[in-house]
Amino acid sequence: MKYSLNQIQAIIGGKIIGDGDTLITGIASVELAKEGDITFIKNDSLVSYAVSSQASAIVTPREIPSIKKPQIAVENPFMAVTRFMGVIAGERYARPPGTHPTAVISKQAVVGEGCSIGAYVVIDDGVKLGNNVVVYPHAFIGKGSCIGDGSVIHANVTIREDVTCGKRVVIHSNSVIGDDGFGYLPVEGKHVKIPQIGSVEIGDDAEIGAMVTICRAALDKTVIGNGVKIDNHSHIAHNVTIGDNSMLIAYAKIAGSARIGKNVMIAEDVGVTDHATIGDNCIIGGGSNVYKSLEPGSIVWGSPAKSINDEKRVQVLIKKLPEMYNTIKKLAKNNPAK
Amino acid sequence: MKYSLNQIQAIIGGKIIGDGDTLITGIASVELAKEGDITFIKNDSLVSYAVSSQASAIVTPREIPSIKKPQIAVENPFMAVTRFMGVIAGERYARPPGTHPTAVISKQAVVGEGCSIGAYVVIDDGVKLGNNVVVYPHAFIGKGSCIGDGSVIHANVTIREDVTCGKRVVIHSNSVIGDDGFGYLPVEGKHVKIPQIGSVEIGDDAEIGAMVTICRAALDKTVIGNGVKIDNHSHIAHNVTIGDNSMLIAYAKIAGSARIGKNVMIAEDVGVTDHATIGDNCIIGGGSNVYKSLEPGSIVWGSPAKSINDEKRVQVLIKKLPEMYNTIKKLAKNNPAK
Amino acid sequence: MKYSLNQIQAIIGGKIIGDGDTLITGIASVELAKEGDITFIKNDSLVSYAVSSQASAIVTPREIPSIKKPQIAVENPFMAVTRFMGVIAGERYARPPGTHPTAVISKQAVVGEGCSIGAYVVIDDGVKLGNNVVVYPHAFIGKGSCIGDGSVIHANVTIREDVTCGKRVVIHSNSVIGDDGFGYLPVEGKHVKIPQIGSVEIGDDAEIGAMVTICRAALDKTVIGNGVKIDNHSHIAHNVTIGDNSMLIAYAKIAGSARIGKNVMIAEDVGVTDHATIGDNCIIGGGSNVYKSLEPGSIVWGSPAKSINDEKRVQVLIKKLPEMYNTIKKLAKNNPAK
Repeated sequence: MKYSLNQIQAIIGGKIIGDGDTLITGIASVELAKEGDITFIKNDSLVSYAVSSQASAIVTPREIPSIKKPQIAVENPFMAVTRFMGVIAGERYARPPGTHPTAVISKQAVVGEGCSIGAYVVIDDGVKLGNNVVVYPHAFIGKGSCIGDGSVIHANVTIREDVTCGKRVVIHSNSVIGDDGFGYLPVEGKHVKIPQIGSVEIGDDAEIGAMVTICRAALDKTVIGNGVKIDNHSHIAHNVTIGDNSMLIAYAKIAGSARIGKNVMIAEDVGVTDHATIGDNCIIGGGSNVYKSLEPGSIVWGSPAKSINDEKRVQVLIKKLPEMYNTIKKLAKNNPAK
Repeated sequence: MKYSLNQIQAIIGGKIIGDGDTLITGIASVELAKEGDITFIKNDSLVSYAVSSQASAIVTPREIPSIKKPQIAVENPFMAVTRFMGVIAGERYARPPGTHPTAVISKQAVVGEGCSIGAYVVIDDGVKLGNNVVVYPHAFIGKGSCIGDGSVIHANVTIREDVTCGKRVVIHSNSVIGDDGFGYLPVEGKHVKIPQIGSVEIGDDAEIGAMVTICRAALDKTVIGNGVKIDNHSHIAHNVTIGDNSMLIAYAKIAGSARIGKNVMIAEDVGVTDHATIGDNCIIGGGSNVYKSLEPGSIVWGSPAKSINDEKRVQVLIKKLPEMYNTIKKLAKNNPAK
Repeated sequence: MKYSLNQIQAIIGGKIIGDGDTLITGIASVELAKEGDITFIKNDSLVSYAVSSQASAIVTPREIPSIKKPQIAVENPFMAVTRFMGVIAGERYARPPGTHPTAVISKQAVVGEGCSIGAYVVIDDGVKLGNNVVVYPHAFIGKGSCIGDGSVIHANVTIREDVTCGKRVVIHSNSVIGDDGFGYLPVEGKHVKIPQIGSVEIGDDAEIGAMVTICRAALDKTVIGNGVKIDNHSHIAHNVTIGDNSMLIAYAKIAGSARIGKNVMIAEDVGVTDHATIGDNCIIGGGSNVYKSLEPGSIVWGSPAKSINDEKRVQVLIKKLPEMYNTIKKLAKNNPAK
């Protein structure tokens, strides 16, 4: 990469202090930046790092005279810099439009304009890709699935039959969308499979991490709302619904038919039991197991999940158990049973 | 899909009430069914849903006059409907027999009759596929592995060397069978690998979810019994044995050389420690960590796992810790140490 | 396999007792070995197993006359046998050098000598493979990534752009290296992606299990040290650093920017919170959640993690809660509030 500070300012906005022709050849954190890099500080408390940084230019929240280097002063430096990072990401990771000759695309599939279909991609009958869809090598898209405009399907992803993705959906590598839900009926000591013939529907602007499974419904649909973000190693079981703009950090384990509301924040390694309803705007702390439904706006933690204040109180008291035990022993000794 | 009610009755049995020529073009849950769909109610408590459902026909546990729609009355509606779902699954997901021209199959491999080998499948030397095996695109089957009649290997599955699968085994997408167990010896501060040269043996009618790992043994075999069902994201370490018809829900973490008996039910997100023996018919509650062997028929929960009654009692008392703490404080105040 | 005992002794050292021409055609554990197999006992306490074993030869810690079979007596039988297992692994799993004609290798990629590139491997522009690298079928290596001499990339692995692997690195099947870290900024109720444009650097002799994700840094690098061993289903988030020779057992969940020291031992299913620093030589027990930094040499367990002794004490007292509760009730009854 090669940008002048002026060019970067055109992308991120703000005011240049110093030489706008300064050449920038990299970007790094303030601690690790070296000559040629641009960096940033989020706020004033980090000025000392900026002063001692080896970076060639610094994005700052306001002009800071003690930094003896070119600056771009901008209201929200981190946010501004992410715009520049987006430009770099585009340069580095963009896949050229066109279809690799080794891609196997059914004649019954429809591919929009401007798509980039990588080597060894397999696209089955009845698939519809919108415009400007990127499919990395080795992805498989099963019969009848639809992928909306501007979506990105990474390498080794499996999308099974009848999955619908909205626009600008990103699915990271090796994830599986539309695998069978885990449903069996007990019959004479054996487990008889309940065929899973429903589908999966993913909204616009959803981003699905790597190594995620989203199971097809037994009947009806498993639904992932618009703007939902799901981190790596998560599991969305059959017939789950996740509301718009909810965020699930890594290893979210959402059991069958659970309903997660909108704008819910689920921290890492959380389990939600089957058929539970989690209201809008809930926050669930890391490592929790939620065994019952939650009212909208609940903030819970623990296993089983309790209100966060109850859980914090319980954690403090668990640490005090040895002291409590000793006190009880002493009291019992001084108060022998009558 | 297009079925008359008569045709569906021929599949699921039971007695038609109303017009047997009613045309059915879909299937859905009772809440979401719309015109053209068939649906079902599991039992009488759901009759009101059936009455208000938009479905064109309803499978019921007995003739219910208040439902003003064609019915099929059958003893176990859910079980009956799963048979129809199986027919639909066959229609929708069947892969035609034949070998895609891009499949790379070793001349030292043997492929049975009626198999369906998808695009870009790679099958190494010495592999044996039985009859009517389905292999989805991008699956890789390593040297010397055997897959029994009627098995289904989904897309992007990796089966390494010397793995044996019985008949009618299903392995869902992106799972890995036969990867190295995690075994090292400490030598002068480093971890020296113990080569993993054993194998994996999977019994008849086992179903392995997506994103599952079943590690090859260091020596001898890792064994998955007949009829075992393993849900997504589970991990079966080296030299584990799982008895017939056991069921492991998502994120089962079975450590090295553990022995799980027959008909064991392991709920989601359970860890079993290495070398533990879990007796037949045990039930392990969700989120448990089992650090020692369990007698047959044990029902346990918690971390560490206890008898389920002990765990429930403990959970109640943990919630009462604030009350207990206050009582102790008061008692101590009223009974100062003598 | 076919080895004489003399040939095996040449590999593992030690002293032959009995007929060095004994033919060995397999290897198994002492309980399961049958005629033709060689087996071993780790120490004297297992002599009775060796006496009754069906094996044709036994590796022993010293000459044991009660074993009426050929022996190889060697100081550390298990360690010695692993050397022989390594030879067998080489025979069984070695991939022949050469490039399969279906591999798609960019003209802008550099492939060293002696490499084995499997069917349908895709190698993008600017990739550098060292000498004697093995790439199994269906692996994808993205733009600009470098893989050091003697490394092994298993089937269906995804390595994204700008990942650097040292020498003799092993990455097991279906793992993903260099996927985007999970980073968003909240803007008007939506989650705006922070583009992830850093990289991943993996040291020499690291071994990464199956189904592992190692995310690329937002900026800078995610770093896995030399000799690090990471077990299946683990997740290393963006900007994490893991020091040399640390070992992470299955389902390690290392959150963003955490710094794990050298020689750290992390048992199964452990979470480490973001930005925590875990000192060198720490040991973290299975199922723990570590919510704060740990001094070097700490030994912790539990959720939240405490010193192992505190956690053990707490676990004992949690079991005693019913007894404590009853005692408190009795005391309160005998000491009514004044």
